[in-house]
Amino acid sequence: MKRNNVPYKINLTEQEIPKAWYNVRADMKTKHRPMLNPATLKPVVESDLTPVFCDKLVAQELNDKDRMIDIPEEVLNFYRMYRPSPLIRAYFLEKALDTPARIYYKYEGGNTSGSHKLNSAIAQAYYAKEQGLVGVTTETGAGQWGTALSMACGYFDIDCKVYMVKVSSEQKPYRKAVMETYGASVTPSPSTTTQIGQKMLAEDPNTTGSLGCAISEAVEAAVTTEGYKYVLGSVLNQVLLHQSIIGLEAKAAIEKYDEYPDIVIGCAGGGSNLGGLMAPFMADKLTGGKAPYFIAVEPASCPSMTRGKFAYDFCDTGMVTPLAKMYTLGATFIPASNHAGGLRYHGMSPILSQLYHDGYLDEARAVGQRDVFEAATLFAKVEGLLPAPESAHAIRAAIDEAIKCKESGEDKVILFGLTGTGYFDMAAYMQYNSGEMEDYIPSDEDLERGFAAIPDIKEAE
Amino acid sequence: MKRNNVPYKINLTEQEIPKAWYNVRADMKTKHRPMLNPATLKPVVESDLTPVFCDKLVAQELNDKDRMIDIPEEVLNFYRMYRPSPLIRAYFLEKALDTPARIYYKYEGGNTSGSHKLNSAIAQAYYAKEQGLVGVTTETGAGQWGTALSMACGYFDIDCKVYMVKVSSEQKPYRKAVMETYGASVTPSPSTTTQIGQKMLAEDPNTTGSLGCAISEAVEAAVTTEGYKYVLGSVLNQVLLHQSIIGLEAKAAIEKYDEYPDIVIGCAGGGSNLGGLMAPFMADKLTGGKAPYFIAVEPASCPSMTRGKFAYDFCDTGMVTPLAKMYTLGATFIPASNHAGGLRYHGMSPILSQLYHDGYLDEARAVGQRDVFEAATLFAKVEGLLPAPESAHAIRAAIDEAIKCKESGEDKVILFGLTGTGYFDMAAYMQYNSGEMEDYIPSDEDLERGFAAIPDIKEAE
Repeated sequence: MKRNNVPYKINLTEQEIPKAWYNVRADMKTKHRPMLNPATLKPVVESDLTPVFCDKLVAQELNDKDRMIDIPEEVLNFYRMYRPSPLIRAYFLEKALDTPARIYYKYEGGNTSGSHKLNSAIAQAYYAKEQGLVGVTTETGAGQWGTALSMACGYFDIDCKVYMVKVSSEQKPYRKAVMETYGASVTPSPSTTTQIGQKMLAEDPNTTGSLGCAISEAVEAAVTTEGYKYVLGSVLNQVLLHQSIIGLEAKAAIEKYDEYPDIVIGCAGGGSNLGGLMAPFMADKLTGGKAPYFIAVEPASCPSMTRGKFAYDFCDTGMVTPLAKMYTLGATFIPASNHAGGLRYHGMSPILSQLYHDGYLDEARAVGQRDVFEAATLFAKVEGLLPAPESAHAIRAAIDEAIKCKESGEDKVILFGLTGTGYFDMAAYMQYNSGEMEDYIPSDEDLERGFAAIPDIKEAE
Repeated sequence: MKRNNVPYKINLTEQEIPKAWYNVRADMKTKHRPMLNPATLKPVVESDLTPVFCDKLVAQELNDKDRMIDIPEEVLNFYRMYRPSPLIRAYFLEKALDTPARIYYKYEGGNTSGSHKLNSAIAQAYYAKEQGLVGVTTETGAGQWGTALSMACGYFDIDCKVYMVKVSSEQKPYRKAVMETYGASVTPSPSTTTQIGQKMLAEDPNTTGSLGCAISEAVEAAVTTEGYKYVLGSVLNQVLLHQSIIGLEAKAAIEKYDEYPDIVIGCAGGGSNLGGLMAPFMADKLTGGKAPYFIAVEPASCPSMTRGKFAYDFCDTGMVTPLAKMYTLGATFIPASNHAGGLRYHGMSPILSQLYHDGYLDEARAVGQRDVFEAATLFAKVEGLLPAPESAHAIRAAIDEAIKCKESGEDKVILFGLTGTGYFDMAAYMQYNSGEMEDYIPSDEDLERGFAAIPDIKEAE
């Protein structure tokens, strides 16, 4: 029976903002394999990471014991500006699809950064400020993370140097302008400001860049500049920890109406959004309770989970970072310049990778960008929110699941993450509207070239 | 004593969305002078307006008797998608200014159209649909109204033809893309598709266009195309009626915390936002109760209230519309191409004009755009919301009032309208960031040229 007593938007109160993040690793039966020091190939310890990252963030990165980690009061204060984010019942989408499914989405695009990335940016900027740093360096793909970090650094009045994947900086000049308005400096990557950037440009002067390369540049800039550390918007354990606030709020909100999702869907580039959204529901599964069916949606052009290898690999193209055990297409893989710039990473969060490998994350699904924009356009029309291309990957899967429900007559509860808005992606919408959008699917040969660069690591049992 | 028990965001529940709009005209002691038929110079009657506007909207336009007008259920359903909008306590701005003032803003930019315009767009699209029309025509300046109307027409599945002021369409190609994504067709104005557009182009092929000219084109297109009517996003009584939902919600929210504004501030182009925000507070004043001090903020480049004449004038450059008694710079006045495209209209809502003339609207204030962007940038950094240039006019005045409170030690309650986001205005921010932004102040001679075009109407007493 269809529940129609749920309001369009379930808003928690400010008092209901979670006071602690949830650390899913504490509940995982099989921990993900430790990161390896690239020089020694030994598991990293604190002292390997503190030259690159803030001390408190290193501690979070390595913490697989504590289930809940308190959110600092200064971060909570900032959260109160834009959180709790609404959980929205997609009545209009349900009607358009004529589905018996009940569809909910957690909308994280309501803040000026336009995405969920702010949840971790403000935490990382806080710890940098607390440590007395001058500033931080980072990379950005679609620009969402860079925007969020610029806002966070502007708020705590510390410097912010952003390396922006070149193709994105060309597609989105206004993203750059937003970051600069918040006081950040933005450098298209690869650039001549770093050794690794110079090397990439020498190899291919026409490269459109990649997230992996921009990471290398940002890390190099951090370790070679006094008073700076490097911060990252996805992939890392600490990021998934901070993003757990998405899931904690979503769970509290949906349970107010005695609902529980049968399916949880998130787009997955580095894994920050899906990891955060699913965390508390995954807790139910890991602790033996009822649990949703989890779906990670990735672009067919960068299919790290659906077609990648589960192996130790570098997190960056320059191969200066620690190695992580994850699903990967190889650190040298550069995806076609599709419009979901936030989903163009060659690897995947080690936590999500392990959960997928162990069958807790039930399914990974690759979708083409024309299908994604078809879903985005329908969603924009009926739900009134213009989604980012990244988020629209989750919308595509949610629509497909809802259509299956129509066919089977099942009234499943579908929850997906709407991570951000598409205001800076209108060039992509224009291309879709004009019928000129293409799908890019890497060939097996393309993938083999990437796989060839994955180092051959013998793992101790 | 400073109240610090107010949450950052005061969210009403969906059940608290007002079920009726408030019609301020019913409480006005001196009604504004009636619009005049341009051919006969007699007060317009229903049959003068129904060829141009939808029947139900004409009835609302002429209604000065009913205080409350029910919101149709279909419109309420749409409102539930994005309303109630939050009333936000600007704790961070207060702290940055070190002011004893308590600052609140009603944030209308949280929906995909990015502004308050959606409140009236959905109502107008609904009445057009209800009347069985094929579609509607309109003009847009900054693009906010066109975007909102596109969303509304997309929702009700009727056609939408938008004439967009040429300078805006060039500054904001992505605005056009959003409208097209929602299914609208967008024509830069002046265009060759109408007689008035052809005439304007013949007179000045390099014209950057104006809202007044785009209105003429949209009206011409409506009356010459079967199944179409014209709709307008500001100025008209019906629009102020629909926008009263802003003020009704703001009043309900602020009163929950036993607060009442000492000052209410809104930017004013055609008057839709300020008219809506202040309406229920103005009711207090008109009915003899306590009341705030009302401030309308306009750009120094288009100073209709601060430097214009209170006179009967055409609402459009082509002089095809009825004449309205209002503050005006003359229908031929074309302001410099400043970045607050939504505030470039030569006239002002007849309701606001009358209230200002009679001293109920206490003050009109003109501000320069560099000062406006200074305020916008500060606000973006501390409050985390990147404002539209239009909205930033209100921010500028709110900051100035808060600074006065610091000097005098008064803890006034300041309420302003944050009408929209600046995501499509990044070219303007880039210009400000680079230090290349200029202020445009029309000379007295510029204004005299505009005044010369105001018709000389003898009013009956």
